[in-house]
Amino acid sequence: MSSSRVTLLTDFGTRDGYVAAMKGVLSSLVPDAHLDDVAHDLPQGDVVAAGWTLSRYWNRYPDGTVHLVVVDPGVGTDRRALAVAADGRFVVAPDNGVVSRVLDAAERWSAVELADEAYLLARRSATFHGRDVFAPAAGHLARGVGPERLGPEVTDPVRIEEPAPVGEEGRIRGEVVAVDRFGNLITNIAGAEVRPGSSIHVSGRVLEVRKTYGEVEPGEVLALVNSSDRLEVAVRDGSAARRLDAGRGLPVEVERPGS
Amino acid sequence: MSSSRVTLLTDFGTRDGYVAAMKGVLSSLVPDAHLDDVAHDLPQGDVVAAGWTLSRYWNRYPDGTVHLVVVDPGVGTDRRALAVAADGRFVVAPDNGVVSRVLDAAERWSAVELADEAYLLARRSATFHGRDVFAPAAGHLARGVGPERLGPEVTDPVRIEEPAPVGEEGRIRGEVVAVDRFGNLITNIAGAEVRPGSSIHVSGRVLEVRKTYGEVEPGEVLALVNSSDRLEVAVRDGSAARRLDAGRGLPVEVERPGS
Amino acid sequence: MSSSRVTLLTDFGTRDGYVAAMKGVLSSLVPDAHLDDVAHDLPQGDVVAAGWTLSRYWNRYPDGTVHLVVVDPGVGTDRRALAVAADGRFVVAPDNGVVSRVLDAAERWSAVELADEAYLLARRSATFHGRDVFAPAAGHLARGVGPERLGPEVTDPVRIEEPAPVGEEGRIRGEVVAVDRFGNLITNIAGAEVRPGSSIHVSGRVLEVRKTYGEVEPGEVLALVNSSDRLEVAVRDGSAARRLDAGRGLPVEVERPGS
Repeated sequence: MSSSRVTLLTDFGTRDGYVAAMKGVLSSLVPDAHLDDVAHDLPQGDVVAAGWTLSRYWNRYPDGTVHLVVVDPGVGTDRRALAVAADGRFVVAPDNGVVSRVLDAAERWSAVELADEAYLLARRSATFHGRDVFAPAAGHLARGVGPERLGPEVTDPVRIEEPAPVGEEGRIRGEVVAVDRFGNLITNIAGAEVRPGSSIHVSGRVLEVRKTYGEVEPGEVLALVNSSDRLEVAVRDGSAARRLDAGRGLPVEVERPGS
Repeated sequence: MSSSRVTLLTDFGTRDGYVAAMKGVLSSLVPDAHLDDVAHDLPQGDVVAAGWTLSRYWNRYPDGTVHLVVVDPGVGTDRRALAVAADGRFVVAPDNGVVSRVLDAAERWSAVELADEAYLLARRSATFHGRDVFAPAAGHLARGVGPERLGPEVTDPVRIEEPAPVGEEGRIRGEVVAVDRFGNLITNIAGAEVRPGSSIHVSGRVLEVRKTYGEVEPGEVLALVNSSDRLEVAVRDGSAARRLDAGRGLPVEVERPGS
Repeated sequence: MSSSRVTLLTDFGTRDGYVAAMKGVLSSLVPDAHLDDVAHDLPQGDVVAAGWTLSRYWNRYPDGTVHLVVVDPGVGTDRRALAVAADGRFVVAPDNGVVSRVLDAAERWSAVELADEAYLLARRSATFHGRDVFAPAAGHLARGVGPERLGPEVTDPVRIEEPAPVGEEGRIRGEVVAVDRFGNLITNIAGAEVRPGSSIHVSGRVLEVRKTYGEVEPGEVLALVNSSDRLEVAVRDGSAARRLDAGRGLPVEVERPGS
């Protein structure tokens, strides 16, 4: 049997040793666990950005993987702490909407509140639930404890709704919902909505849809269906966010051919 | 039996591949070792900051873990190289005081100088002891070599004393000894010294002691006992270091109730 | 038998979860693999810098290690994707010259093009070959698939030649070929060319050769043979790149004693 695997996503940075304290708790519970860093440089407290990041990897990992996500501006308030089982993987995170994109994408999910003190550190601080609440719960899941033992079922986790694109007479109007560090503008429009010959309207420009960055000149703005199967506006070897001075919320329209 | 685990803390950054060279040496000696990054973005040569970082995780890991710490402004001078055994874990580091907080906290410790050439790389550079001295020693410890085999005992490792708080007539006067990346100001005053109803005097302000960030408004300065059981001055969703324009050495006083 | 090990070097940053998606693909193929981060903060698209980084660790790892390198400004063009076997290790990377320093250093190497679709993801994006092409190939190598099964042999991988130093009458004239994050200026002149008593001419200065940083005062410029056995120009506790306002291409001359 192979060792279990836990991934870690936080906004703690690494230099203070807070993430390492979580890894210590995990490896005390599951000495042979693989601990994979995802990122610790998330924009502080940005639950929406963290949710998009999580959406890109959670179901690329094999069944049984435990994904630990601690972006927790509400630590010390009465927000709940969750363990979510989704399509064979687990996500352990505060109940602040960070799991929304996982719940949207999963075929099956269930959730529990981290309430049973037997699975948390006996001595818990009020300010560092990453170490004292989330890491112990993740460790117990990784060593095979069933999520139902961690606490009562939660059927209403906080969800941050992704704005839905609106279709009208051959046009679909969506918007930018995420910006990656390359400055790519990722929309809420699914790749399936983009037909060959569609025109993309954004920031006063009309773009045709390309297959890859290499089809345009360096520095040129382009539209394509990205690796997550979303319509994306990009600049080859550059930043569309900077070029268009835009971010989340920027309207983007797809005009179907012949409309 | 589970695989051994080695953690790595340096100020090397990652982009040049120096840390990876150390990981290569480690995995050559212990092919199945888990190699956990702590941080590589420590402030360059800041032995005091590195020591505080180490203090937050070393004893959260299970017995047998080897903690490799290479913040080494004295590489190429005659400073000694150490392996410390402390409460069941090992720390491999230059003898420049970086292990001081571990020695303060450990119930039992002993140390040796890395002197036996059989446990170092045969060909050693004068400038990269992380790869040629510290990583091989850590690897040998991780594969079960006893520390006594690495070299002679050291009873006088360099220690950087933490300034002691001073108590006088119901007042304890301490100071800020560490600043984390959130700008939290961490003092040398233990949580036990802070009673309910104590007043905290800092930078001309008088603060009551809170349990968690959520008890004050965003942007407000507060005092609390932190997750390492130290009195800390913080700003909710902000940086106390920036707000108070302060860092290590800032005086902080606890006035006990009724004094 | 110990678990296999895969290292990851990219210019993706970590915050968007792209690297984690690659780790998910890898751990789906090789559940028990150790996944070691090298760096994800390489200068974007800088194939030369990535090649120097790779040169510092690839052969420090044990035989069988798979090194995944995705610095790929040409994604979506017709550049080839490669797997290189070199002295017992594997490197999986785009065919853009990033493996040049490995090919220079290896005693034996062979290469194949990643062409057999059985070893790539079935559904491949045009923009994220790190996840869809390179990670699957690396995973299959890590679980023991022979490189010859991944595709046809490649005998002419793209090579970026390192400029050769020129010798004339007791003088060797080379240049800076890499700059690390400390600002150390690394030349193409091998340590063996530097004799005791040699003088180093750089930026109008004449330097003697030191053994280590500790031999000069903080802030002083020095020359030494570095941990990769190359002549290097450095500043103790400082940056030679900044001090000399210099980078790749800066001429450096070694004048042998008595010439």
